[in-house]
Amino acid sequence: MRDVSSELESYFAEAFPADWDMPPALLESMRYSLDAGGKRLRPLLVVAACESLGGSRAAAIRVAAAVEMVHTYSLVHDDLPAMDDDDLRRGKPTNHKVFGEAMAILAGDGLLTHAFYVVSSLARDGLLPAEAAIGIVSDLAEYAGPRGMVGGQVADMEGEQGTTDLARLEYIHLHKTSDLIMFSLLAGGRTAGATPLQLDALRTFGRGIGLAFQIQDDILDLVGDESKLGKKTQSDVKMEKVTYPFFLGIDKSREEVRRLSEESKTAVLGAGLERTDILLAIADYLVERDR
Amino acid sequence: MRDVSSELESYFAEAFPADWDMPPALLESMRYSLDAGGKRLRPLLVVAACESLGGSRAAAIRVAAAVEMVHTYSLVHDDLPAMDDDDLRRGKPTNHKVFGEAMAILAGDGLLTHAFYVVSSLARDGLLPAEAAIGIVSDLAEYAGPRGMVGGQVADMEGEQGTTDLARLEYIHLHKTSDLIMFSLLAGGRTAGATPLQLDALRTFGRGIGLAFQIQDDILDLVGDESKLGKKTQSDVKMEKVTYPFFLGIDKSREEVRRLSEESKTAVLGAGLERTDILLAIADYLVERDR
Repeated sequence: MRDVSSELESYFAEAFPADWDMPPALLESMRYSLDAGGKRLRPLLVVAACESLGGSRAAAIRVAAAVEMVHTYSLVHDDLPAMDDDDLRRGKPTNHKVFGEAMAILAGDGLLTHAFYVVSSLARDGLLPAEAAIGIVSDLAEYAGPRGMVGGQVADMEGEQGTTDLARLEYIHLHKTSDLIMFSLLAGGRTAGATPLQLDALRTFGRGIGLAFQIQDDILDLVGDESKLGKKTQSDVKMEKVTYPFFLGIDKSREEVRRLSEESKTAVLGAGLERTDILLAIADYLVERDR
Repeated sequence: MRDVSSELESYFAEAFPADWDMPPALLESMRYSLDAGGKRLRPLLVVAACESLGGSRAAAIRVAAAVEMVHTYSLVHDDLPAMDDDDLRRGKPTNHKVFGEAMAILAGDGLLTHAFYVVSSLARDGLLPAEAAIGIVSDLAEYAGPRGMVGGQVADMEGEQGTTDLARLEYIHLHKTSDLIMFSLLAGGRTAGATPLQLDALRTFGRGIGLAFQIQDDILDLVGDESKLGKKTQSDVKMEKVTYPFFLGIDKSREEVRRLSEESKTAVLGAGLERTDILLAIADYLVERDR
């Protein structure tokens, strides 16, 4: 799995050919945020789900690239002055700090749109049947769209201390973070021809680790190490955002991360997959991570 | 064709069910801009292209809704303070004036993403084979993406007087406006099983009327009637944007609109379509329009 990042970066070079007829600054702005790296968690999940069923790595890498493009667009828009107004992301100046607000908006729009082009290329280039490719388009649009990630972003923006309860916070985390993680697992499964029951297990796994991941994010924002995280901590407190530690405290939040991680592991263990080791290792890593 | 607008609006109600679990303000913001109306030119072109080959109206209306959602998202983002900073659109306050900047960004993101969900629904609901649906996804992502409309928006933003020549302006118009119009015709053709040669003719028609439409826009911004247009004129002069009248003057620009319209008509007349009357009428209307 260590090669996923480098395979992904090779594919980005293919997905955005240097000889494309488009304004060079747009290409530069999109690549700047894509290449900023980060954990590449979602690509890893796509490939892990695909390989848990012995599917094609080449198809999985394209889906992995598409989900990372969607994730990156969401960060670029989220960092804008009108949204979270962040100057730093993954240790580097945010997109709008380097390219200006207008370009950051358009680079985000370009990344989101091009993700669907990449998914459609699976059918065009004969890597997947059209039925499987259109299923992935449908899932991506659902989990990243107004009922999914975009809805979660809106709820997050509206969710200030005093007006939001724990159930509402779960809605925010579920859609803002888990939805794209669930999509990654579902889409990885689809590239390998997963059965409906296997897709259900992968979705349950994604829901659990997605929530665990986001609660851990809340915890790290409160007590994490800025140099490891590559961003300023205490931003939730400053923005008066509700978080799991805000409601439950640090210890109970940590317990919830562990519980969700175990629950997720149980889901994939019973799904009759060819191999589960990578998925289980990812669930463990999420509990321990400090960046 | 007069029914296209009302069929479109009925379909919007289906595409955004009121019982969807999403923040009500997001739904309201997306519907506000979608329902603001406008000419519905792109939906009309989808249906006209589909009916020129005797295709299914139900499939065409969904594609028409998707392209109108993409067009609307581009207007919402284009109007933002960081972009064109417009207060008025189609005679109503712009989205960010009513819902705030953050919501306008997210409503645009939601409309763009959901457009792909609507296209994928054609295969899910058995209205089109998966091959045709994924072909429409691919075209939409290409013509609306970084090599298409988004690239055109960036070039438009960069294209100020003094640094842009007429060839560059044609690039801007081609991508900012013609691309989505070309997509509308191509996708309409695809819903009706057009041959590659017929798709070529529809693309050529779209390229010509798209350019003609945008040059007419430039002309109307200079000499049009604000009450008919529903927006302030002279905005290009104020923003120091290059336009066809800026390079060629009003009379030569009008001549170019007529020439492109005739060229477009010639393209569809030789393509062996079942009927061409609606397409020809649209090409004529674009020359005469005053709003």
